[in-house]
Amino acid sequence: MRGFIEGVEFPGQYRGVRYNGSARRAGRSARPRSRHTFPRSLNPRLSRLSPYPFERLRELFSGITPNPAKNPIALSIGEPKHPTPRLVLDAMTAAGSGLANYPMTAGAPALREAIARWLARRHGLPSLDPATQVLPVLGSREALFAFAQTVVDASRVGATVVTPNPFYQIYEGAALLAGATPYCVNATPEHGFVPAWDEVPDTLWARTQLVYVCSPDNPTGRVTTIDEWQRLFELSDRYGFVIAADECYSEVYFDEAKAPLGSLAAAHQSGRSGFPRLLCFGSLSKRSNAPGLRSGYVAGDAGLVKSFLLYRTYHGSAMSPAVAAASLAAWNDEVHVRENRAAYAAKFTALQPRLAAALPCPMPEAAFYLWAATPGDDAEFARRLYAEQAVSVLPGSYLGREAHGANPGRGRVRIALVAPLAECAEAVDRIVAFLRTV
Amino acid sequence: MRGFIEGVEFPGQYRGVRYNGSARRAGRSARPRSRHTFPRSLNPRLSRLSPYPFERLRELFSGITPNPAKNPIALSIGEPKHPTPRLVLDAMTAAGSGLANYPMTAGAPALREAIARWLARRHGLPSLDPATQVLPVLGSREALFAFAQTVVDASRVGATVVTPNPFYQIYEGAALLAGATPYCVNATPEHGFVPAWDEVPDTLWARTQLVYVCSPDNPTGRVTTIDEWQRLFELSDRYGFVIAADECYSEVYFDEAKAPLGSLAAAHQSGRSGFPRLLCFGSLSKRSNAPGLRSGYVAGDAGLVKSFLLYRTYHGSAMSPAVAAASLAAWNDEVHVRENRAAYAAKFTALQPRLAAALPCPMPEAAFYLWAATPGDDAEFARRLYAEQAVSVLPGSYLGREAHGANPGRGRVRIALVAPLAECAEAVDRIVAFLRTV
Repeated sequence: MRGFIEGVEFPGQYRGVRYNGSARRAGRSARPRSRHTFPRSLNPRLSRLSPYPFERLRELFSGITPNPAKNPIALSIGEPKHPTPRLVLDAMTAAGSGLANYPMTAGAPALREAIARWLARRHGLPSLDPATQVLPVLGSREALFAFAQTVVDASRVGATVVTPNPFYQIYEGAALLAGATPYCVNATPEHGFVPAWDEVPDTLWARTQLVYVCSPDNPTGRVTTIDEWQRLFELSDRYGFVIAADECYSEVYFDEAKAPLGSLAAAHQSGRSGFPRLLCFGSLSKRSNAPGLRSGYVAGDAGLVKSFLLYRTYHGSAMSPAVAAASLAAWNDEVHVRENRAAYAAKFTALQPRLAAALPCPMPEAAFYLWAATPGDDAEFARRLYAEQAVSVLPGSYLGREAHGANPGRGRVRIALVAPLAECAEAVDRIVAFLRTV
Repeated sequence: MRGFIEGVEFPGQYRGVRYNGSARRAGRSARPRSRHTFPRSLNPRLSRLSPYPFERLRELFSGITPNPAKNPIALSIGEPKHPTPRLVLDAMTAAGSGLANYPMTAGAPALREAIARWLARRHGLPSLDPATQVLPVLGSREALFAFAQTVVDASRVGATVVTPNPFYQIYEGAALLAGATPYCVNATPEHGFVPAWDEVPDTLWARTQLVYVCSPDNPTGRVTTIDEWQRLFELSDRYGFVIAADECYSEVYFDEAKAPLGSLAAAHQSGRSGFPRLLCFGSLSKRSNAPGLRSGYVAGDAGLVKSFLLYRTYHGSAMSPAVAAASLAAWNDEVHVRENRAAYAAKFTALQPRLAAALPCPMPEAAFYLWAATPGDDAEFARRLYAEQAVSVLPGSYLGREAHGANPGRGRVRIALVAPLAECAEAVDRIVAFLRTV
């Protein structure tokens, strides 16, 4: 979740039918109706969407008055709370006069170059070609969604998109609206939260068109290993599917010496010239505490970039020159990124052991979540914690789906350590106090 | 055309197959191939897209050296050249600190309210409900495209999207990528550039899901009349299709006393409560000379707004708070809009008669184009004008399609009077001089 709190979104009647890693489809009966008029035209795929985790959280909390003796602390939303660096704001301000021109869908050449240079530096790559291997996008949500629309061929029988489970819900919605069936690959604590890629049957891979990988992973904080990437590349070579590597958390980690492995680096280290069938997705939202900038990139296979650009010319999400200027400044600076990491490291170093003593939660490799095991039902845990301690966390079951006999998010909660250290510490203390009463 | 100059876009191999208002589909052979790898997954609808008019113009002009004795003047692109007003820039600057938060897909409530108030003022409407009838979007291109994806049900046999002809190419691409077949309704000088809605057979209306209307029209400058709107509403009531009213040029007109009729006003004046099956699309690009802001709105049928919002939650184009603040300031001010209109009025009043004496071009009702008849082939006219006088205009045939035995853009050029008055006057003089040599 990229932390949208979207009050008016996902009204009740849009409830999609849950699927189960299978091809069962929602009935047309779930189609929304407007009060006065019902247009005969409405894309029936919309009825297959599930309510968003935050919509479900709002319902879970509805009617509850959080303990009025305590100030509410939200650890449910993955929205950075550190300030946007001054240099980003200044660059946007300075670029204001650029508003008089239409931006190109392909993005400002200087921004493409800055992103290409940053990727090469960050991942130890030989130079990327900014003209063919990189595109700016309006944040990773927009791009992860539009990319599925670009690559999925819904006319092929059994069109399938593979996602980890639990997962960022955009993967599922992108698959459904592209006309594909999502297939969930469970990531469980028994296997160190590695998605069980090897349990996917060959027949399923054969109809897979797109695989989403999230690394560092939301919510588990796990980083995909080189072995796992090589396995996925091998499967992609054999079956022809495309890999979308969501790396929007790549710059949030706790040891400066251990930057998470990225998909492009994994491909390069595996001798895969040109990143075949691979596109990686990054963002400034977490790296530079600028979720309101709506700025990210895609990079990888030039053929995919070209197709994506063609789609985007109609899709129409060209980046404002002011946003592009701010983004350029952000990609060209690492000082603020290291400071940002230091702030997260301070929180996780201090608070993960303190919470883990009461609630099992492994130290993540990266990202800013604790993925903690609850005693009993996760939604009930979140509900009571909110009522008694005014602390909100996200039930893990809302981030997963029932698949292969289990919802791997069940019995866990996602705790986002995004607030300042003191506030997070206070919240952890309250969770520990709460656990004594459970 | 909203005036994108998109050099790297629409590479040659993406040439779609032209259709003819019929259901003929492009073969799979037109699918793009990357040099190194060909992912088996690619949405085959991409191969149905046509090259963009500006891509065709670039080809037309390739190898030509424009007359070096003259400075080049571009009247081919519909990009405003008046400056972005200071108040818009200032508002964006002041909002910089808002970048630290995720914006809601539904948009900032204050912006929705400002747009609702503006629409009510501008179109003499009773109050619109900002919570259910209005949504901010990232410019009208993005919204016109995404809306087709929201409403078209490609699983229905013969799914059809009706567009005027000539037309803004996004309508066609949106229809094709939504899995529908575009059907062109010709607008010819013989009928005062009114699209021939009455020549559309009932069987075609019966399978129509979406109708694009452009008013004021690009490229003809014509404004849809109340009678025409009522005819379209009647057809929509009978056949259930949705109307997308593209009104991005609505604030560019030449007589302060004669603001163009909008679709919402037409519905209201016709006693249609709640704007059934109607969504109107507007933009700040032309109104406030801020194409780089990427800001517009949709408004109308609350049921459609709700479905569109659901789609957009995945589509992911939430507006940056900085852009929202700048937009709010722009919608709340009319002084800069009147100044902008005065500048266009000065150009059209001075130059339309001067050009019309040599090249037939009716005075448009609104927008900033002259839609002029050429002696002979329009592309040849544009090519020679560029070579001999260094003035670029857009061949009308690039804006139309062969349909019902004719391309109604053939034999015309679109001349955008966006440059300053002196530059436009110089260009008109050169066109007149050129015509003496033809």
